[in-house]
Amino acid sequence: MSVVTFIPGGVVSAKGFSAAGAAGAIKYEGRNDVALIVADSPCEAAAVFTTNKVAAAPVLYDRKVVKGGVVQAILANSGCANACTGEKGLADAEMSALVTAGELGISPKHVLVASTGVIGRRLPMERLLEGMCKAKAALGRTSEHGLSAAKAVMTTDTRPKEACVTVRIGSKKVTVGGMAKGSGMIEPNMATMLGFITTDCAISSAMLRRALKLAIAKSFNNLVVDGDESTNDSVFIMASGKALNEKITRGGEAFESFRKALEAVCVSLARQMAADGEGATKFVTVTVKGARSEKDASRAARAIAKSPLAKTSWFGKDPNWGRVLAAVGYSGADVDDMKTEVFYDGVWAFRRGETADEKQLKRLEKVLEKDAFEIIVDLHLGKGESSIYTCDFSVEYVHINADYTT
Amino acid sequence: MSVVTFIPGGVVSAKGFSAAGAAGAIKYEGRNDVALIVADSPCEAAAVFTTNKVAAAPVLYDRKVVKGGVVQAILANSGCANACTGEKGLADAEMSALVTAGELGISPKHVLVASTGVIGRRLPMERLLEGMCKAKAALGRTSEHGLSAAKAVMTTDTRPKEACVTVRIGSKKVTVGGMAKGSGMIEPNMATMLGFITTDCAISSAMLRRALKLAIAKSFNNLVVDGDESTNDSVFIMASGKALNEKITRGGEAFESFRKALEAVCVSLARQMAADGEGATKFVTVTVKGARSEKDASRAARAIAKSPLAKTSWFGKDPNWGRVLAAVGYSGADVDDMKTEVFYDGVWAFRRGETADEKQLKRLEKVLEKDAFEIIVDLHLGKGESSIYTCDFSVEYVHINADYTT
Repeated sequence: MSVVTFIPGGVVSAKGFSAAGAAGAIKYEGRNDVALIVADSPCEAAAVFTTNKVAAAPVLYDRKVVKGGVVQAILANSGCANACTGEKGLADAEMSALVTAGELGISPKHVLVASTGVIGRRLPMERLLEGMCKAKAALGRTSEHGLSAAKAVMTTDTRPKEACVTVRIGSKKVTVGGMAKGSGMIEPNMATMLGFITTDCAISSAMLRRALKLAIAKSFNNLVVDGDESTNDSVFIMASGKALNEKITRGGEAFESFRKALEAVCVSLARQMAADGEGATKFVTVTVKGARSEKDASRAARAIAKSPLAKTSWFGKDPNWGRVLAAVGYSGADVDDMKTEVFYDGVWAFRRGETADEKQLKRLEKVLEKDAFEIIVDLHLGKGESSIYTCDFSVEYVHINADYTT
Repeated sequence: MSVVTFIPGGVVSAKGFSAAGAAGAIKYEGRNDVALIVADSPCEAAAVFTTNKVAAAPVLYDRKVVKGGVVQAILANSGCANACTGEKGLADAEMSALVTAGELGISPKHVLVASTGVIGRRLPMERLLEGMCKAKAALGRTSEHGLSAAKAVMTTDTRPKEACVTVRIGSKKVTVGGMAKGSGMIEPNMATMLGFITTDCAISSAMLRRALKLAIAKSFNNLVVDGDESTNDSVFIMASGKALNEKITRGGEAFESFRKALEAVCVSLARQMAADGEGATKFVTVTVKGARSEKDASRAARAIAKSPLAKTSWFGKDPNWGRVLAAVGYSGADVDDMKTEVFYDGVWAFRRGETADEKQLKRLEKVLEKDAFEIIVDLHLGKGESSIYTCDFSVEYVHINADYTT
């Protein structure tokens, strides 16, 4: 299979796309908060949305659009989620898609909308559409244009998130690039995540959807529990076909190469999100292996990643492995603590009933000093394995979230 | 049915019990960390323990003892949980029960042990048993003795927790009193809770167990999710029979009166725990009603109570009802936001798609200024209702839990 190579870039790196960010004063004056991504011609497209039963207006609107499998533009804003806004919010979402289509001279059936920000406020339509017009005037294909769009969707993110890879499919070089927004705690209770991916691969919308679902399972879903999602979570992909590879319409080597490339972009974006968790000081990978089943491994890893007690201990640089083990204990996964081992970056903390002594705790404390480390829990009961990307829980997190709306 | 009356008191208020706390230097010098509760004669007894698959040594030990249905003394310590300590920890638990029985001159089969504190450390046996002897020497029946025992089981608790009620059963006055420890976040990931209840009611251990389970379902379980518990959670009850009522051996009016009295004690202790949540600045009751089922109501209420985003908004005095509604959305409960209403202490924030305007937000902000308030979510889908006691999530919480072991 072909090698996937990371290159600098984002949402305009693949052939056939332009983008821009603009200041619409949606919530704050003078910062980019409206993003526009436009394809030169209608694209094969797919999207995956939140499973939250309270879905935001743009999600309700987009679900219908994306059924057609063809998209040419996405309008996104930060500062207002357009969620819990009823029929009026739905009309706002539709209207913003219609006006965008009109401005761009494309079919209104080919425009998606995405919003993130405070729940329960109406979109300031005039400012949003003014922002859209500004973004349209600024559209371009340079890395600055991609970055400007990536910045426009940030809410509490401290850094824009972009990723790009290339992969050979047949004799052609295919590019997959994307941008994302998300810095909520993600687990257990993520703030909105939005992902926007573009590719010049020639691929049918059905196969695009299949590749996107597989990639999300290995990336964003390792941050996000099903049924534990915000009202607005969405990941979009558009494929322009301009790489001129033989169009992928079924499984096989070409599909696998594309799938791997897309997964690499999604994993990179997911890791950037975890590392930029609100107020996060540490990026932590939690791996549970030796579980009775993959489901058990996933349950246990998620319980650890969600535990405020474990997360605050990482912030405190405290090798409090007891909290890790306690989380496994209530996760629902099978566990026998007399068989279990807990490691921090390869340094053991607990093994089959034996606990770290003072000397070993000193070694562990050195691991906790790092900005990034991995916790491995080996249950020694089977072959199930699962990894979750997460971050610590800091004083800053509370400050950020206590002060967010007002 | 008889009226339940609250009176000042705790674990020694019922006839037939003495208690004391003593300084054992389990973790810190000079503070009470060993508690002893002793009945004048063997009591009918029952207990409910954590469902965490990683259960601490004292829990493993007590499960066997309590099967006999007779208990005369409980030794409890703070500072060390004796969890994840393997066979040696189990031997420590057993040894401490044996030595306590020997000192008190009672059957070793009638002694329970309880521990709370850091996981993964062995009990300092010599200091624990020295503390036990000191407590034995200090045993007494005054409210000071009860308070001293209640203080000895505190970990990050800022206040001791006691509750006591009386109720008439037949022609007799029956007293039920208790003490508890617990100030972890409780939801979603509680630190240990321990409850110790005594009564002079004459009642069989089978009916005692039934009453305890029912009372816990209405109190501590509204703080604690099944399968989401610490390694050490335990609630114990001993009944001395000294009230000389006709012994309760089956359901009926007498049982109902006792059950109500026990429930009142447990609810009071549970509310005290929520109000003393680590770093908590607000006590919040979350009620979901109009749910399709009671299970749905409970799911939705728990999701709100567990949400770090909702909890930090309460700390920030921010009427961010969108976070409340989003939590309901991912809880798994049926919800239609076009039918849903959200109130803070009776002030509406969201009703059937209509969102609070600036004027209404000002009213809501006044509610958020209070130290205690209730959030009501009415789903208007059925008759399911559930209330959860919880607290906000403060900067202080992170400080407390980041610095706990070291």
